[in-house]
Parts: sequence; C-alpha cells; structure tokens
Amino acid sequence: MTDATRAVLDAIRFDAAGLVPAIAQQHDTGEVLMLAWMSREAVAETLATRRVCYFSRSRGALWRKGETSGQTQHLKELRVDCDGDTLLLLVDQEGVACHTGRRNCFFRAARDGGMVEIAAPLISPEALYGAHRHG
Amino acid sequence: MTDATRAVLDAIRFDAAGLVPAIAQQHDTGEVLMLAWMSREAVAETLATRRVCYFSRSRGALWRKGETSGQTQHLKELRVDCDGDTLLLLVDQEGVACHTGRRNCFFRAARDGGMVEIAAPLISPEALYGAHRHG
Repeated sequence: MTDATRAVLDAIRFDAAGLVPAIAQQHDTGEVLMLAWMSREAVAETLATRRVCYFSRSRGALWRKGETSGQTQHLKELRVDCDGDTLLLLVDQEGVACHTGRRNCFFRAARDGGMVEIAAPLISPEALYGAHRHG
Repeated sequence: MTDATRAVLDAIRFDAAGLVPAIAQQHDTGEVLMLAWMSREAVAETLATRRVCYFSRSRGALWRKGETSGQTQHLKELRVDCDGDTLLLLVDQEGVACHTGRRNCFFRAARDGGMVEIAAPLISPEALYGAHRHG
C-alpha cells in the first residue's frame, strides 16, 4: 500500500461494521448513479486499480462493480466529506449503474399521488446478468 | 399523514436503527452537497413542510437543517433507489450545506500525494453558529 492510499484511509471514519457509504456520481454530467458501501480493502483496491470496488453487505464480500455485467465504473476522483464518514466517487460509468438496467438507481420519485417511476430500463436485467443479481 | 406520504414511507427500507441515508443534491447544478440520515418522522416532516429535516445520529433527535444557521434546504423532489435503502433529495440549498462554511461537504480529494483540500469556506463556522455545531 502506498503512503497516499494510507493517507486516504486515515481520513475515513469507517463505521462499527468497518464500512463507509460511497456515493457514485457521473463525473461529467453530475448524475447521481447509486450509493453502495466500501470497506478499507475496497477503498485500497479502488485506488490501486481505478476501477470501483465496493463491499456487498448482502454477500459479505468485495463487489467488483461490473465484474459480472461489464458495467464497470472508472474512478476519476475520490472525495471524503467533512466528518470522514461519507465518500463521493466521481466516476465514468460504463453502460448502466442499476441492476434493473436503468442508468441510475434513483428512478422512483415522490410526486403528487405517491411514488412514480421516472425512468425505464435501457437494457434488461437478464441481458446484464442471466440469473445473477449484483454487479 | 396523507396517503401519498404513506406510499413514500412504504417504499423505503429503513435500517435496524430506523434510519435511511439521504443524499442531498443541488437540483439545478447537480452538485452533491452532503449525506445525512432520515427517520420515518424526518421523511414525513420533510414531505409536509418541503424543508429538509434529517435525523441527527449524534444527538438522537430530528435535525431541521438550517434551524440554527439559516442554511435551509428546500425540497424540490425526493427519490427512492431501486432497493429502497437510499434517498436522493433534490434541493435548493440556501447558502452553504457544510458546517465548515463550505458549499458542500466533499472538499477533500484523494490526489497524488494523499488528501488535498479543494474548496475554501465561504463563511466562517462562527458566523454560522456561534458555539453550535450542526444545522
């Protein structure tokens, strides 16, 4: 591990489970793509490879985004917030970020009558994963 | 509580502590301002008043953003992600979002040598709060 990576890890306050929430934002358009969680190992790997690696809480394992689906996120810049307990990842998203096949995960909006879907899938989940779920 | 608010709450999966992370994004520029947490009550109040109300984990109480500092967030739209476990709040931020006096909380970037500050305060924390801390 480089000194630079160590300095980044030192700036982050991981929670009791050893995780920190990370917001992924498309670097050029500003679109907020998703939120996921990172462990120390996930942060270190992401900085080393410049490909975003999360920690899947459901699977309890590193989650190399796009490993199954090909929808990788290339890291442009990692930022840490004032309290050190949230990360902002400026990324270049290959294809779609959401496992439903939508560009981003925030496709349900609270409008007058309740929840409304405001974006349709660009690709089917089956085309992305077959039987798989994350990626 | 209206049926619409109930529908929104039903779409959200609060965690074991009864909270959900909420990303605040400036609605017109796309700037990611901050991440904080909301309880059911915070979501309901935010939808009712259109002023963003979080739940402060450190104080264990509702946190009406800007109550002390005047730096309120006006809700433009609340979105829920695919899994229901993250919110995206499109807001109009009055003044600055960060308690350090910066426009947003993500002012530390991982660059070559380690962590670098990329934004300066626009206003001093003392001017915002006096002796207070959040707001």
